[in-house]
Amino acid sequence: MARLVLKFGGTSVATVERIRNVARHVAREVKAGHQVAVVVSAMSGVTNTLVGYVNDAATSGMAMDGFYDQMEYDAVVASGEQVTSGLLAIVLQAMGLPARSFQGWQIPLITDDAHGAARILDLDGKALIDTMASGTVAVIAGFQGIGPTGRIATLGRGGSDTSAVAVAAAIGADRCDIYTDVDGVYTTDPRIVPKARRLEKIAFEEMLEMASLGAKVLQVRSVELAMVKKVRTFVRSSFDDPETVGVDAHGNPPGTLICDEDEIVETQVVTGIAYSKDEAQISLRRVADKPGVAAAVFGALAEANINVDMIVQNTTADGSTTDITFTVPAVDEGRARSVLEGAQTVIGPTLIESSADVVKVSVIGIGMRSHAGVAAEAFKALAGKGINIRAITTSEIKISVLIDAAYTELAVRTLHSVYGLDKH
Amino acid sequence: MARLVLKFGGTSVATVERIRNVARHVAREVKAGHQVAVVVSAMSGVTNTLVGYVNDAATSGMAMDGFYDQMEYDAVVASGEQVTSGLLAIVLQAMGLPARSFQGWQIPLITDDAHGAARILDLDGKALIDTMASGTVAVIAGFQGIGPTGRIATLGRGGSDTSAVAVAAAIGADRCDIYTDVDGVYTTDPRIVPKARRLEKIAFEEMLEMASLGAKVLQVRSVELAMVKKVRTFVRSSFDDPETVGVDAHGNPPGTLICDEDEIVETQVVTGIAYSKDEAQISLRRVADKPGVAAAVFGALAEANINVDMIVQNTTADGSTTDITFTVPAVDEGRARSVLEGAQTVIGPTLIESSADVVKVSVIGIGMRSHAGVAAEAFKALAGKGINIRAITTSEIKISVLIDAAYTELAVRTLHSVYGLDKH
Repeated sequence: MARLVLKFGGTSVATVERIRNVARHVAREVKAGHQVAVVVSAMSGVTNTLVGYVNDAATSGMAMDGFYDQMEYDAVVASGEQVTSGLLAIVLQAMGLPARSFQGWQIPLITDDAHGAARILDLDGKALIDTMASGTVAVIAGFQGIGPTGRIATLGRGGSDTSAVAVAAAIGADRCDIYTDVDGVYTTDPRIVPKARRLEKIAFEEMLEMASLGAKVLQVRSVELAMVKKVRTFVRSSFDDPETVGVDAHGNPPGTLICDEDEIVETQVVTGIAYSKDEAQISLRRVADKPGVAAAVFGALAEANINVDMIVQNTTADGSTTDITFTVPAVDEGRARSVLEGAQTVIGPTLIESSADVVKVSVIGIGMRSHAGVAAEAFKALAGKGINIRAITTSEIKISVLIDAAYTELAVRTLHSVYGLDKH
Repeated sequence: MARLVLKFGGTSVATVERIRNVARHVAREVKAGHQVAVVVSAMSGVTNTLVGYVNDAATSGMAMDGFYDQMEYDAVVASGEQVTSGLLAIVLQAMGLPARSFQGWQIPLITDDAHGAARILDLDGKALIDTMASGTVAVIAGFQGIGPTGRIATLGRGGSDTSAVAVAAAIGADRCDIYTDVDGVYTTDPRIVPKARRLEKIAFEEMLEMASLGAKVLQVRSVELAMVKKVRTFVRSSFDDPETVGVDAHGNPPGTLICDEDEIVETQVVTGIAYSKDEAQISLRRVADKPGVAAAVFGALAEANINVDMIVQNTTADGSTTDITFTVPAVDEGRARSVLEGAQTVIGPTLIESSADVVKVSVIGIGMRSHAGVAAEAFKALAGKGINIRAITTSEIKISVLIDAAYTELAVRTLHSVYGLDKH
């Protein structure tokens, strides 16, 4: 007997027919003797419709045009998950499985007051544990909780993943199964590299890098939470037939387990290659090379709430000026330029160049920590294909390079092959 | 300064554009210096969609086919009002009016455990009063509360009217305005009698008779509650232009005030004529005329939960048998026949006749209590038109006759004219 949390996204519950399919997955686990909690998203399309209503409602053409209270947004939008949780409970009951729905405020899942993108402060698992112990499936409306003033609070887009991991942590679940439209985490994007392999296991830290770098399988926040709370999280496909889905030699169905690195017996040096096109490169040419300039540049950007990622600073030949290159999220490119133009009174006149036609490609692997030469291998392989590297950042478990967007596929395929990730 | 409750039904909030129109009604009252609470239904069509999902979800083709937990039904269906309450709050805010939404569980509006058709046990007005006193419009999701186990409970179809009256009672409102698709309560159905007049005022007791007899302006339960709690309830049109709606010599906009009879200065003998086609007549011919037969007949019907309304018993010429005629709701006609056929072992063999081709026409007026001859006048007028009366029931303030459905319009017009209700 295990205690399991199953999470299903909007596509998996898009219609009552699909909710029936979800219920069959739940039934399989119950019949296997497990205690089950299910976390559900809104039926796909519903959240967008509700958000559309909110935006329309806020557009009054009057005094406070466009303004709205995030608490009201939350009350409107959280209704989507409320509906799905009730419907899944009803389908399970109709199958003869005891079930009951839980709204965020009923658990309760306590959040902070950042309505619209609230963070989970506390989740009391008692009601859920009692329900599950009595043989009833707990069906939880994801994405939502209750804020400090007793109002409904949503966790922001993709918050249902975070709900599921938080529930799993609170009830001490053996595993949190995230059912999604892919059957696991791959060594890289299979649309670019057909030889990409599904990983059987990946460490939390690695998944965090993969998630934040564009492998959109799991929300970054949910992986962070899973890592902190050590929640074993299993990514699997909701399209597998619930009854006939097979298992491998270890009794596991197809999917990827995100777990502590201790659980991964044979670690690879490199686990995967990720890429992100959501970057823009900004270069400041011939900035005065004197103390305080970098602080002025990045201080101004920080004040404007613009995240800066990769930073490269070169001294020019004459020694009196320098070039500073860095990346910002592509959506912030224009805003960053304005901020920097405004900051020229402090940093002095400079030529500002920017381009969103770049991509960040990353090599990720916990094994890097104990292996030298991993970065050198990447640089050499890219050079061999004539790909110019604009900037580099590294951490203990990843190497990222910024290159021209035109080389994305070539770079990813090359690195995937160099580190032996291609399918056997 | 008055404290007002405004209630808007599904048609009035069917789109964000119509919700804006509702907000303009609210704004007018706020600008007039009133403290305002608003009760809203689900956007029209939404409740039906959600109920459709529930029925679909309950149809599993498996063990418990068709069964579902009313608590889950409530969680699903109550989401409709949740959405509207949030949207109206947002529209009001966009207009520059402070507003916040209240779900049933947030007020809290406490109900019994009859999920799906719960009754209100308690409504704590404190949070609403505090909100309104601070100059904020309280926007309340109608139709719902919280049951004894902390689950969402809905009040049954049309429950938003009841929510509004309950809120008005709890906060000591000066008036509860029910905005609907008609501009008040008429002396009779204007589709049948073009000369029907809108009543300026009607007593609770009269409205109760009008409502239960087919004038579908207000839910019966809400009128009962208004009578018990003495909530002055004003029925008015949501289609009036919010800013230009005129007022009469007494400063009242077009509509009908449902109030205590003490507030009605000049009571009429007859206030209105109502009719109901939802009746079926059942006759038992040549039943043995002995003690216990009537008890057996009506006992069997009561056990089957069939409401019996008008009862007439005549002794036949021979004195040994009797004819019993009564009415039941038209939907129960077939079921009633089956029950009575089964009861023949007790009541003896009898000829059972039934017909749904009948109508109950009622003359209603508090003034009747102090006027003799009102019934005689009705009988005479109907006889003058050759209309045969099949059954009669009377109460202190109403006379009902059962007639052939074909004479509905003629009977209603005749009675409307006889009692001087035609427009001047």
